[in-house]
Amino acid sequence: MGMKNKSAVVIFSGGLDSTTVLYYALNSGYNVHAISYEYGQKHIIEIQRAKKIIELNKNTQHIIVPISARLFTNSALTGHGIIPKDRHDINQEFIPVTYVPARNLIFLSIAAAYAESNDIHEIFIGINSQDYSGYPDCRNDFISSFETTVNLATKAGRSSNGISIKTPLADLNKKEIIQLGKDLHVPFHLTWSCYDPYTDSSDQQKPCNHCDSCLLRLKGFHDAGINESEIS
Amino acid sequence: MGMKNKSAVVIFSGGLDSTTVLYYALNSGYNVHAISYEYGQKHIIEIQRAKKIIELNKNTQHIIVPISARLFTNSALTGHGIIPKDRHDINQEFIPVTYVPARNLIFLSIAAAYAESNDIHEIFIGINSQDYSGYPDCRNDFISSFETTVNLATKAGRSSNGISIKTPLADLNKKEIIQLGKDLHVPFHLTWSCYDPYTDSSDQQKPCNHCDSCLLRLKGFHDAGINESEIS
Repeated sequence: MGMKNKSAVVIFSGGLDSTTVLYYALNSGYNVHAISYEYGQKHIIEIQRAKKIIELNKNTQHIIVPISARLFTNSALTGHGIIPKDRHDINQEFIPVTYVPARNLIFLSIAAAYAESNDIHEIFIGINSQDYSGYPDCRNDFISSFETTVNLATKAGRSSNGISIKTPLADLNKKEIIQLGKDLHVPFHLTWSCYDPYTDSSDQQKPCNHCDSCLLRLKGFHDAGINESEIS
Repeated sequence: MGMKNKSAVVIFSGGLDSTTVLYYALNSGYNVHAISYEYGQKHIIEIQRAKKIIELNKNTQHIIVPISARLFTNSALTGHGIIPKDRHDINQEFIPVTYVPARNLIFLSIAAAYAESNDIHEIFIGINSQDYSGYPDCRNDFISSFETTVNLATKAGRSSNGISIKTPLADLNKKEIIQLGKDLHVPFHLTWSCYDPYTDSSDQQKPCNHCDSCLLRLKGFHDAGINESEIS
């Protein structure tokens, strides 16, 4: 682990991908400012999980930013429509109903404001295009274009010391992300993926195991040869 | 006035520029959804003025979106530092301390989410580069880059019916904006420009008449040959 003389913002949902990115940044020697967003997501439990994961990393700052949920009135992920189940052959070209309009654009823009306010020049985000490129704002061409735009938008970018967007998972599939996470000692049992949790008889939130996000997670652990129930 | 079969989002602060843009869009026949942001600005009075202006335009929707003020901890405009006074020779190349990190990037990103959620494809913003190009996020190259990015970020943009950013004031100076506003019957007396208002003995908020924004406004009215006190 290197000297902690550099800082980074990590966009951190409490999910499998962004938690792996968090641990990647920590392991690379960054002082991490993790930023989580509350935007009316049905799976708000992910924020509780994000808090628990941060509790394991005492030197990490955690910023939770609310975003007005009324902006996102046509996404199944914010309660407007049914979350699809059992789509085992997810079409990479089709944009799913769980798409949230301009979500990563907003997440990155707010992260950039926070970064610039704190003289931080690197922003990590856990996008990965191989497994699930249906979301337009998870693709590499968007990230590349955003990086250009954010440097035109900011004082930092107009100087010689601009803002860089880091996507360490960009070329990994879910199996590879899980393998990387295992190497980095990611607490998988605390990460949350399910879009559509239910409450069981003991008042615990449980993953549905049938939404796109659950299916990708289950397949990823299967492909990586890891039994998730044995690692918690 | 044209048929109101098209809609637009207008980023609307209650200031001189964005109110002129609001009236421009209304006069061009758009159904307008005006979006105002509360981000911890010292001159929060501008939002009260925005509400009053919308009251004059009954068919206009007004959306007020809070943005966590703790994101912007190094701007004089959000109370961190002194607002400069009496800078009669504003240097166009120097970024002022009233710069708010990534503000227009966030404003446009949130407006894009709202637009896409409501099947709107045009977003108006009152940037103008001639009078005051010190803010990086008010320049044409930023807007052009953002337009590319937002269309990569969104479902709308990935389809054939993308999002367009309209900047009708881009090439106007303050005098010309005021002349346009006069033609459009903008209620100038309700618009608010001052960064650093004070409360007078009758508990009214008053403009300081010395900050950059006041000076540009005063000069604009002077150059346009309009006596502001006679038009309210």
